[in-house]
Amino acid sequence: MHTLQVDVGHSRYPIIIGPGLLSNRELLHAHVTAADCLIVTNTTVARLYLAKLRDTLTERRLGECILPDGEQHKTLQSAGWVFDALVSNKLNRDAAVIALGGGVVGDIAGFAAACYQRGIGYVQIPTTLLAQVDSAVGGKTGVNHSAGKNLIGAFHQPLAVITDTDTLATLPDRELRAGLAEVIKYGCVWDPLLFDWLALSMRKLLARDVDALSYAISRSCEIKATVVAQDEREHNIRAILNFGHTFGHAIEAATSYETFLHGEAVGLGMLIAADLSCRLGLTTALVKERVRDILAQAGLPTDAPRIGAARAMELMQMDKKVLGGTVRLVLLEKLGRAIVIGKYSQDALEATLTEYFA
Amino acid sequence: MHTLQVDVGHSRYPIIIGPGLLSNRELLHAHVTAADCLIVTNTTVARLYLAKLRDTLTERRLGECILPDGEQHKTLQSAGWVFDALVSNKLNRDAAVIALGGGVVGDIAGFAAACYQRGIGYVQIPTTLLAQVDSAVGGKTGVNHSAGKNLIGAFHQPLAVITDTDTLATLPDRELRAGLAEVIKYGCVWDPLLFDWLALSMRKLLARDVDALSYAISRSCEIKATVVAQDEREHNIRAILNFGHTFGHAIEAATSYETFLHGEAVGLGMLIAADLSCRLGLTTALVKERVRDILAQAGLPTDAPRIGAARAMELMQMDKKVLGGTVRLVLLEKLGRAIVIGKYSQDALEATLTEYFA
Repeated sequence: MHTLQVDVGHSRYPIIIGPGLLSNRELLHAHVTAADCLIVTNTTVARLYLAKLRDTLTERRLGECILPDGEQHKTLQSAGWVFDALVSNKLNRDAAVIALGGGVVGDIAGFAAACYQRGIGYVQIPTTLLAQVDSAVGGKTGVNHSAGKNLIGAFHQPLAVITDTDTLATLPDRELRAGLAEVIKYGCVWDPLLFDWLALSMRKLLARDVDALSYAISRSCEIKATVVAQDEREHNIRAILNFGHTFGHAIEAATSYETFLHGEAVGLGMLIAADLSCRLGLTTALVKERVRDILAQAGLPTDAPRIGAARAMELMQMDKKVLGGTVRLVLLEKLGRAIVIGKYSQDALEATLTEYFA
Repeated sequence: MHTLQVDVGHSRYPIIIGPGLLSNRELLHAHVTAADCLIVTNTTVARLYLAKLRDTLTERRLGECILPDGEQHKTLQSAGWVFDALVSNKLNRDAAVIALGGGVVGDIAGFAAACYQRGIGYVQIPTTLLAQVDSAVGGKTGVNHSAGKNLIGAFHQPLAVITDTDTLATLPDRELRAGLAEVIKYGCVWDPLLFDWLALSMRKLLARDVDALSYAISRSCEIKATVVAQDEREHNIRAILNFGHTFGHAIEAATSYETFLHGEAVGLGMLIAADLSCRLGLTTALVKERVRDILAQAGLPTDAPRIGAARAMELMQMDKKVLGGTVRLVLLEKLGRAIVIGKYSQDALEATLTEYFA
């Protein structure tokens, strides 16, 4: 069991990573201190882990709210269902929300906790690799709007993140790979040694080697905690964690969040961003090739949907990172070093969009 | 023109009170600095002041979102319409929301601004006395849930509050009186001299004497700013501003937000709270009589709806101020001094509820 601390000014909380945590009574009661809780989960995860969590958290009064599974349900309406469940369980300001599931569940549940009675506590229990390495950490919560991802949300840090690595045993291969895309991202923007380690360890990771996965999770959380501690509200450096996301969000929106998992779209977005970095002369073709190779190694898609360059551009414009009309992009200078820029050749951008989307 | 500063730790903003502000180009452009804005208003206020605001703010690109009028529309669905308007106007993180209207418009618009892209700025232009003396100041935003008021919301301070006292000329008498209920509240919980002044000046206020109304607004904002500066998130002293609100919210919920204006319900709630304060021996019968008299002077209702004591109790239980199962109440020790208590005789509470609701 490995514990990291996240420290973001006014709030400080632990990330606990290890096997068997969902059955660890002492640990769960120590971190879920509210007497009354609402477990928010989805139909898939409920079947696998809801009874187990209930059996462990016997000292708490537990309500539940089971959402439909899938990114297309990350809506204001789903948040409304969580509010309904909070109200019908008569939960007060001292209650807590427990998010049991992947990134979608965590984002909706965290957003509902942020807004219910103007803010109650919540605990993240991420059950997908993507949530464990990324979305459960850092306090970004929210839901999608039909026009774009995460357009409605709040910054609201959890009380604790409890990552039971045993939950990865039931994760479909495709979701495991999608989670690895975010780990690859940390390598690209922050840690070249992690990138190299991933390239060497990909087979182990895909075979669900426990030690390899635990290291990938811990290192990812360390990097994210370091970045978020410096810039909770994404005024500057935190933006590098959006590497691949502006293109990725456009891909998800164009395909109604149904064709690609978030991690798959981000993987494609990273490749496209690396391509543009090359075209702009910021980095070398080798970097782009290494990004493509590691995505392929991880079994992630490397072909974007042919939605048209103009449509891709339009969807990028609606992405949250657009500031004052310019699309700010996270690009690579080399593996392990990203920059955020708002001024770049539109010709180069169009060439990249044409190559991948036309 | 009178300017006050609100200082709540991380944010500092002006409240500007005076006549003719909606036509003051220089002032409005100085405080509405975003190039792109969304004006949120309702059908009633739009007819009266939307064109005027547009004519003044000519240097800004202005979208608009016109909501239906009334407390029953202070819902998550209305917030959803504001999100739709923000998106369809392609507004980005540097855009601002302008809330033009009463408390309902300000609360919805402020909440939408708090959540859109995880928080953009907003300016309050309150057009009702209630909003000018209370809801536009202090950063509480939110919408109602069918089970209770303001159950969904955020703390989000405005960039500025611009109070054009000329807007009171078009306010219906009933809403003027409802606004006075909140001014009476500040007298009750904080400032006995304000209470005495109100008793002496009520005729002038109801006749819309400009100087009297301006003083009532300024003094109310001063008191609210002082309290909020000490306790933005209502961990302690800010709770006294909820005097009358726990009972008032129960009355509003029981009557589906249709029978009583918010200020009318709060006025009744203050009388009921004063009655309970008496029964508990915290204050004298004279205080209760003075509260009843001033409500009558202001033409506010002093008879609660006969919803039954049990139903009133049930609705109070769902009020946001319930903490750990006990209803915490704001009660009076004397005029100008309030206390918040969670332990009190249930018999006394039942006697009060029976007297007013049975």
